Amino acid sequence: MNYKSLGHFTALILLVEAALMLPALVLSLVFGEPRATEAYLYTLLIILLISGLLLLLSRGEKADDFYEKEGLACAGISWLVLGLTGALPFFLSGKMDYIDALFETVSGFTTTGASILSEVESLEKSLLYWRSFTHWVGGMGVLVFLLALVPRSKHGAGFTVHILKAESPGPDVGKLVPQLRKTAQLLYKIYIGLTILNIILLALDMPIFDAFCIAFGTAGTGGFAITNAGLGGYSPYIQWVTTIFMFLFGVNFSCYYLLLKKRPGSVFRDEELRLYLFIFLSAGLITGISSHAAYGSWSETFRHSFFQTASVMSTTGFATTDFNLWPTLAKGVLVFLMIVGASAGSTGGGLKCIRLNLIVKDLRCSLKEMIRPGRIYPVRSNGRLVHESVLKGLHTYLSAYVLIILASFLLLTIDGKDLTTSITAVLACFNNIGPGLGEVGPMGNYGSFSILSKLVLIFDMLAGRLEIFPIIALLSRTTWKHQ
Amino acid sequence: MNYKSLGHFTALILLVEAALMLPALVLSLVFGEPRATEAYLYTLLIILLISGLLLLLSRGEKADDFYEKEGLACAGISWLVLGLTGALPFFLSGKMDYIDALFETVSGFTTTGASILSEVESLEKSLLYWRSFTHWVGGMGVLVFLLALVPRSKHGAGFTVHILKAESPGPDVGKLVPQLRKTAQLLYKIYIGLTILNIILLALDMPIFDAFCIAFGTAGTGGFAITNAGLGGYSPYIQWVTTIFMFLFGVNFSCYYLLLKKRPGSVFRDEELRLYLFIFLSAGLITGISSHAAYGSWSETFRHSFFQTASVMSTTGFATTDFNLWPTLAKGVLVFLMIVGASAGSTGGGLKCIRLNLIVKDLRCSLKEMIRPGRIYPVRSNGRLVHESVLKGLHTYLSAYVLIILASFLLLTIDGKDLTTSITAVLACFNNIGPGLGEVGPMGNYGSFSILSKLVLIFDMLAGRLEIFPIIALLSRTTWKHQ
Repeated sequence: MNYKSLGHFTALILLVEAALMLPALVLSLVFGEPRATEAYLYTLLIILLISGLLLLLSRGEKADDFYEKEGLACAGISWLVLGLTGALPFFLSGKMDYIDALFETVSGFTTTGASILSEVESLEKSLLYWRSFTHWVGGMGVLVFLLALVPRSKHGAGFTVHILKAESPGPDVGKLVPQLRKTAQLLYKIYIGLTILNIILLALDMPIFDAFCIAFGTAGTGGFAITNAGLGGYSPYIQWVTTIFMFLFGVNFSCYYLLLKKRPGSVFRDEELRLYLFIFLSAGLITGISSHAAYGSWSETFRHSFFQTASVMSTTGFATTDFNLWPTLAKGVLVFLMIVGASAGSTGGGLKCIRLNLIVKDLRCSLKEMIRPGRIYPVRSNGRLVHESVLKGLHTYLSAYVLIILASFLLLTIDGKDLTTSITAVLACFNNIGPGLGEVGPMGNYGSFSILSKLVLIFDMLAGRLEIFPIIALLSRTTWKHQ
Repeated sequence: MNYKSLGHFTALILLVEAALMLPALVLSLVFGEPRATEAYLYTLLIILLISGLLLLLSRGEKADDFYEKEGLACAGISWLVLGLTGALPFFLSGKMDYIDALFETVSGFTTTGASILSEVESLEKSLLYWRSFTHWVGGMGVLVFLLALVPRSKHGAGFTVHILKAESPGPDVGKLVPQLRKTAQLLYKIYIGLTILNIILLALDMPIFDAFCIAFGTAGTGGFAITNAGLGGYSPYIQWVTTIFMFLFGVNFSCYYLLLKKRPGSVFRDEELRLYLFIFLSAGLITGISSHAAYGSWSETFRHSFFQTASVMSTTGFATTDFNLWPTLAKGVLVFLMIVGASAGSTGGGLKCIRLNLIVKDLRCSLKEMIRPGRIYPVRSNGRLVHESVLKGLHTYLSAYVLIILASFLLLTIDGKDLTTSITAVLACFNNIGPGLGEVGPMGNYGSFSILSKLVLIFDMLAGRLEIFPIIALLSRTTWKHQ
């Protein structure tokens, strides 16, 4: 393990976090929230101390060996550290005990949006801002952000590639790997551009502070609301704008990249985009038709059904209505959407549409090979052959996904909440959605879980956001063994 | 597709079924049940007509090409035909409509034990006998039974191997493939021997008719009871005997084979057996400790908890208590057991312990390879290397398992039953257990589902028993295409 690079990198991440916390500090001064101001100042002090110490320990020449395991460990460690320190303002302002603050912050950075708060509005505005801002920061990945900033890697050639690999969602980053820094910068420009557009459209019908917070939650596909009523308290216009942007942030960003490069053809032929759109439209229609009885008109029905579909599928987790009260079919569709999730290379979580697409294709080919063992039926996606190693990675991912969900579910049942609450809490956290069903439905919260359950769910949120392996790599002896 | 062999084989299966139905016919005469007698006679007539017709159509020289696809199709078709004709006695005696009769019969042959009956005791005794007997027939596989009988294959060399492959549970039949017929006969001897022992032990404390029916349900890991109270109405002695035999019938039969061959060492070192035992003991203890408050004494508690653990894990599905009322932790453990299931090469269903074992091992190795890409970490089981193709098959199986369960769950939610009922109904049918939780709990039944849901669950039971591929192969064009 290249400890020097790891330490150096963690210190940089902490400094980035400190810089990102400054606007919240300023806001606390503007809004006159002395306890919050104090909490931010102490937090910044602690972060600076730790990063100073880390820089001191890791000073001098870095070794050149920065490979997969360093990439995995860097990603795992920095997200852990971000959560641990990002939680301090909530804790130091006396609003939550530390585990709750950690839950809330990890939920923020991982863009989950699961909250332990029953009274959101009791938080100071600057804390609400920080809470929503963590979504935006977590959405595109802090590590990639750092890579876009850092002028030139001092850590050997593997540095950028292996960190990007470890943090990026989706089974394959191949397409965008060349010219990494440039690509990262362009992706950030798209992300920022879409966010600004979202803020402007929201600000037409809501206070500017709210517009910022809601746009952060939408762009990061996070889902922290800033009022107890969630998005239900805003106008239909706001709800439709949010529906559209939740959908847009669940699209693979390389589609926007290709649009900017004026290659719309390959975008509209993209299998994942088509599947994503198809599932979105079908789910919106099915949930709408089945839940129609609960609403006054079809326009109201479909406003709620498409909002909820976009929200759960993009793994944002905003709510305009209590879908806990929907009929079982609609709830079943939501559970399905929780698992499928958004697209690879988006800010959303879940299994991702491309994985579903590849799993189904691989299954068809495997079945054909089973029926006629002599022949080989290769899997193709977007007209190109899918390499055997990608399929192996896909299967490994699915196995890990199933096992972690099963184990987490078992640990959660110790709390004695009902089965639907227990299983959907795990699905909603692991897939970075936020609200589940039952007690953790859109009108509920995670506050009443035991510390054990909260720790399990924190693990799930991190594992879900980082696509499992960077987090479990931290637990493997192989990662830390000398050579 | 080798239609002649397929037709010939299906005819033979039907004739075997007719022969197996004769005891039920005799019983209906003995007990004086004229409507049942009539139903059996009509059924036998129909079966004889169909098989006669098939024999006529498939007479003459069979082509030699009997490969994987013929094996898959034979297995799929014969189980379908067994269900379709085996249902006739229930239907023709006027006890159920045809879909319900089919559900009950497929549930029987697949050793699921899910019932649409709210009043079991209203069935004639000879029908109860036939219902339980289907479990016993389905337990070891009718096809293997036929192979053990048929003196010498007239269908080319691939015949036996490919049918056995298609019907046998578990990822690998390699160990037992040489001397197929002899092995099949020995396995049947073990099966019959254990069943007789079970009947004798049960008959010490219950009527002989009941002892036969309960032993059939236990040996096949089926779970049809013959009284409304399930196994709750019998003595603690009967319940413990059944616990032990349910456990025993969930063990890989090759363990008994090796014991008979006087190789106990390799049995006790068997990883699957150890995992099976470990999960059984842990689950029995956890469910017992967590549900203790519901019972008078620890001995009563553990009688119920180990009975339920053995019942769900071996995928039998008998009940002595309403585990629907257990605390969430205990119910969570039961859901886990539903998924894991019994051992490969046993009469039980589910994912099987060996698959769980291999998935975890493969995951560890894949993680290590991800951390240190240069090296190769091969998967070992029982000290031997596991071939890459076995792992690929395992992953394909897991993907198919997850997808079918998700799709079935979605289709079931249309009925509007609660989520717990919908998901556990699918798990309980697909894994061939029988009772689930909620409305399909041990005191409930499947009668109130819609026809669509019943058809979905019939598909799930067949797919679960035949380990998916023989059933979905029937739906693939590749199977039926010329060449």
